[in-house]
Amino acid sequence: MSHAQFAADNNHTQTMRKPEMIYALTDLIDRDLDEEKLSVTEKQKLANRIKPLLSKDAIVHAQANPISGDIKYNALKAKNRIDWAEMLGISAVVFPENFLTGAPLSDYLLKFPIVLEECREWIEVLAKQTVKTRVIIGFVEKSANKLYNSIAVLCEGKIEKIIRKSVLIDADTSYESRYFSSEPFNIQDRIININDKKVLILIGEEISLIKESQNVDYIINCSSSIDRTEKEAYINNLLSGIAKNLNTPILYANQVGASDCVSYEGASRVYNRSGELIYRAKQYEEQFFIVDPFVTEGKIYPLPKGLEETLNSKKEFTLDYEPDLERTYKTIIQSIRDYFKKNGFKRACLGLSGGLDSTVCAVLLADAIGKENVFGISMPSKITSTQSKSDGKCLAENLGINYLEAPIKDMFDATRKTFDVLFPDMEKNWDCRYKESYTNDNIQARARAMILWGIANEFDRCLTIATSDKSEAYMGYATINGDMSGGYAPIADVTKTKLFALAKWLNKNREQKNAIPDSVINKRPGAELAINPKTGKPLLAEEALMPYEFLDEVIWRVENLNQAFNELLDSTFLYEKENLLSKEQKTEWLEKFFRRMSTAAYKGSIMPPAPIVDVHSINKAEFHQLITSSINYKKTSLDEKSRLFHA
Amino acid sequence: MSHAQFAADNNHTQTMRKPEMIYALTDLIDRDLDEEKLSVTEKQKLANRIKPLLSKDAIVHAQANPISGDIKYNALKAKNRIDWAEMLGISAVVFPENFLTGAPLSDYLLKFPIVLEECREWIEVLAKQTVKTRVIIGFVEKSANKLYNSIAVLCEGKIEKIIRKSVLIDADTSYESRYFSSEPFNIQDRIININDKKVLILIGEEISLIKESQNVDYIINCSSSIDRTEKEAYINNLLSGIAKNLNTPILYANQVGASDCVSYEGASRVYNRSGELIYRAKQYEEQFFIVDPFVTEGKIYPLPKGLEETLNSKKEFTLDYEPDLERTYKTIIQSIRDYFKKNGFKRACLGLSGGLDSTVCAVLLADAIGKENVFGISMPSKITSTQSKSDGKCLAENLGINYLEAPIKDMFDATRKTFDVLFPDMEKNWDCRYKESYTNDNIQARARAMILWGIANEFDRCLTIATSDKSEAYMGYATINGDMSGGYAPIADVTKTKLFALAKWLNKNREQKNAIPDSVINKRPGAELAINPKTGKPLLAEEALMPYEFLDEVIWRVENLNQAFNELLDSTFLYEKENLLSKEQKTEWLEKFFRRMSTAAYKGSIMPPAPIVDVHSINKAEFHQLITSSINYKKTSLDEKSRLFHA
Repeated sequence: MSHAQFAADNNHTQTMRKPEMIYALTDLIDRDLDEEKLSVTEKQKLANRIKPLLSKDAIVHAQANPISGDIKYNALKAKNRIDWAEMLGISAVVFPENFLTGAPLSDYLLKFPIVLEECREWIEVLAKQTVKTRVIIGFVEKSANKLYNSIAVLCEGKIEKIIRKSVLIDADTSYESRYFSSEPFNIQDRIININDKKVLILIGEEISLIKESQNVDYIINCSSSIDRTEKEAYINNLLSGIAKNLNTPILYANQVGASDCVSYEGASRVYNRSGELIYRAKQYEEQFFIVDPFVTEGKIYPLPKGLEETLNSKKEFTLDYEPDLERTYKTIIQSIRDYFKKNGFKRACLGLSGGLDSTVCAVLLADAIGKENVFGISMPSKITSTQSKSDGKCLAENLGINYLEAPIKDMFDATRKTFDVLFPDMEKNWDCRYKESYTNDNIQARARAMILWGIANEFDRCLTIATSDKSEAYMGYATINGDMSGGYAPIADVTKTKLFALAKWLNKNREQKNAIPDSVINKRPGAELAINPKTGKPLLAEEALMPYEFLDEVIWRVENLNQAFNELLDSTFLYEKENLLSKEQKTEWLEKFFRRMSTAAYKGSIMPPAPIVDVHSINKAEFHQLITSSINYKKTSLDEKSRLFHA
Repeated sequence: MSHAQFAADNNHTQTMRKPEMIYALTDLIDRDLDEEKLSVTEKQKLANRIKPLLSKDAIVHAQANPISGDIKYNALKAKNRIDWAEMLGISAVVFPENFLTGAPLSDYLLKFPIVLEECREWIEVLAKQTVKTRVIIGFVEKSANKLYNSIAVLCEGKIEKIIRKSVLIDADTSYESRYFSSEPFNIQDRIININDKKVLILIGEEISLIKESQNVDYIINCSSSIDRTEKEAYINNLLSGIAKNLNTPILYANQVGASDCVSYEGASRVYNRSGELIYRAKQYEEQFFIVDPFVTEGKIYPLPKGLEETLNSKKEFTLDYEPDLERTYKTIIQSIRDYFKKNGFKRACLGLSGGLDSTVCAVLLADAIGKENVFGISMPSKITSTQSKSDGKCLAENLGINYLEAPIKDMFDATRKTFDVLFPDMEKNWDCRYKESYTNDNIQARARAMILWGIANEFDRCLTIATSDKSEAYMGYATINGDMSGGYAPIADVTKTKLFALAKWLNKNREQKNAIPDSVINKRPGAELAINPKTGKPLLAEEALMPYEFLDEVIWRVENLNQAFNELLDSTFLYEKENLLSKEQKTEWLEKFFRRMSTAAYKGSIMPPAPIVDVHSINKAEFHQLITSSINYKKTSLDEKSRLFHA
């Protein structure tokens, strides 16, 4: 920030009320370590401006974005925030659960003991340098050969207290029992003193253990809670209810940032003793967030538009995705941005087929990493329609991303020629050649992937993007080494019907309106890899699978209601309200669903990393699926079972 | 089995001592359900032959191979074994931990409640049909919305007892806390009566909880313990020690068979009260294994040759792999066999480069699924040497597998031509083209994979094989969508130096000697994808990486001693005993190791399923590695840390 900007900002804040003024000023603190820093004089000047605005019980939520495993980076980032807090005379600075190690955790905790040694040393060095501000920071503690998910309280040059997590979580993307031992939950061990107030420190899900008032002044809940559909409802209702029940303010300090498949939304917050939300930090951004649990005129950064409507969990399938679209967009954008930044990538290349999936991916990439860093390649084959070609080009122009065409005819022909020599020879030994096969379809998809990976080999820090969506991931409707291959898969947890809604939302809500051509949104999806002999036109995805509206409801029911074959058959689908559907057809589709889902397990196991977006997903980071298994999806009656025993 | 065979076998047994006679006869029981069955008369005749040989305390270990999730299949298999036990008048039949659900477990337990309902119903129906033989069988129990890893004891038409596991395991490939609740360990709840003997039933690792004699006649330990290097030592020493300590015989009933990455070796066994091994079932095979814990003339099927030498865990790295080679071979063979059988595959195709990896894979496949079901394809490029081509062909002839040549020149040229048009155009927008790249290397590897996947698309139930080895997997020395792609990766947990030893072992120990040409074993490995400008010859892998002997010791030290950079630098490597190695060179190699290992994380995440073989592995089924992470492998001193805080 230049001096001029600093002064301008300085003036601007004069007309604001106190909370706004604080946050306008502290915005200058939320820089990443490698970004331009304020000079010492500017820092002091800034501190002098902020200090008089603060009340005596003000503390800081350091909502900062760590790098998993990079304890050095995280410690330096923490130190930066701690120094600011000291400079401002703030009595405590709170970091999220696991901040120092960086969330999410992984097996480096087991494989490299050095990580835990470094963790302990950084905590010691951090402690030594504390003065008056208490530091409350999540780290992984090793003690007597056991690991603990712990919070350290540092002050006046010492480690004042270490609190070990009692409630280990082993659901979804968490595998805490794999790493940690737990200690019995004891309230008294968790109480610290901040500015003469009694403060209860809780880690993650421990908050649910508190059933009655504990005679403390407020509660700090250090958390690292992943962002997904309906999570806001869960967190809000839980914390608000507990604050009210206990008649105690709660400060919830959450992680922000993304790693691989997991995105943390930030949105740290304070509920007062009546359970009212009085502060909420930004979502998807770092923030030096100053709160006073006793002052009820805090700043509430707004939730994404429409999200409050999801505060009551959906009980049935709907095509009205609107309330979740801005959050979906922001989750994916943060995930892409952090995947590139934290892994040292800068550019992305993807195939632009003119279809919905690649189109939405292109928009998301342009927004996440900058249009100049995205290269869309149209790779037509003889089945590609003129409309598809022009849609891809039009999109690229609208977005301002780079665009070129690379026909795959020569690669296809050379491969086909190789096969035409090889396969007849192989048939002499293997009398089991299919009469009909997907070989030609797949050559096209694989030639395209070969071009994209070639680009990634040839251009600096360029990542290939896989454009598979969630509906297709369930059905294994993607080509191995073809369209499902890539370095990152931005929309692999977004179903097709939701993608249509997202495309429309993007056209309405991005600064640049209608970047996505109408024809992309209006045409029925198809891979354009084969001709349907019945229609003479390119085979549509819904002809190969089943209507997406039906498929996406099956997915929703399996994920949210845990229904299997019989319950699904007995349920009335949204699709059935407007379409005639015979029991035979429904049975056939459901059988196809389970058959395809089973055989898609292998494809799931080799899917690129992808952001988890929905309440549930089949992302391999959270859904452990064996390839070698054979689930009995259909119920057999007791009689049938007895009969089978006597067959 | 034909009547003639049956009669022949019948005569043959006349001359044997009792245990051998029992096992020769019961061999006829160990058929899979879909294999030919004995007629009712033959069964009765067989039972009449066996019955008089049995002592009154004889019980059966039903060491049977389940299919994960296929409760119906597993129940029918159990029923078959139970019927035999009833027919023989045996007082109890014991199945391993989790037999009914099939081990390993996975998230279908959470996603499809129907699986647990079916599990309960099958247990009930099984119970109803029991008569006098007690059935002790592992299953997953759902009760009050909690899941338990349980053992059911069934007898006289009823569920006599259900025992819930107390000690949950969350290491390696086990994620029990993800699924199960546990109950406090109470010995009395675990004691049942078999033929007037008091028998203590323990599940898996609970055996370690028993510290003193419990006044029971013997212990049954139902287990599902995965097979890996040094596991035999662990199991043997543990069980023998406990049996002796408690002065109580132990029956250890282990799982057999493989799923995805996990292989169970069977080798169920009995230790007498002195801790002596008196029975041991076959490894890697189903067996209806009759034991009497009080009769000390049991049958001991031998361990793989040399394995007893591993009974004392290795404390340092050695190139003497001999003691573990037969086990390694058998583990991989069972893994391939079950992956094909349980997933409905019949054939395999793989590239035969004339190199060590593809050569060893071809031998393993021929042995596991039959030479007629294996197709080796030589896919030479202009870099491929004549020697490599002739080595591939010679191997195929020796093995009797199918073989053809499919040059990739046309596919390479067409791809190169496409790139030669595309890349210069892209450079106009992206001024970041590498001066040197791996693009040409990778086109070759990807063209080959395209051919192999095309074959899998075109021929019935054919699986493409990935030939990556463990040393390369650590280093990410494999091409995405190229040689690392496939439906199964047989040797991904075998290091290069061990593979050389395995190749020699195969030449000596297979029925057909010297199938692998000497030149394959004697040449130094290289991918033959690029020319080394320094030598003018194809680049060798050790030139691109580091000497395999050094690399494999780094891997061994990281896996077994958890060493990171500084400890590795300070250790003396076997390589250093015979080679001059400067500290600079060693530092460079170690830095390269950690750099490459970090960037290989993405490749690890998309590796095909592969059998776990070693004590530790980076197979994604057991090693949770984040791609987005940055581990501090190098120690920074306390002083440096303080300094960094003040920078």
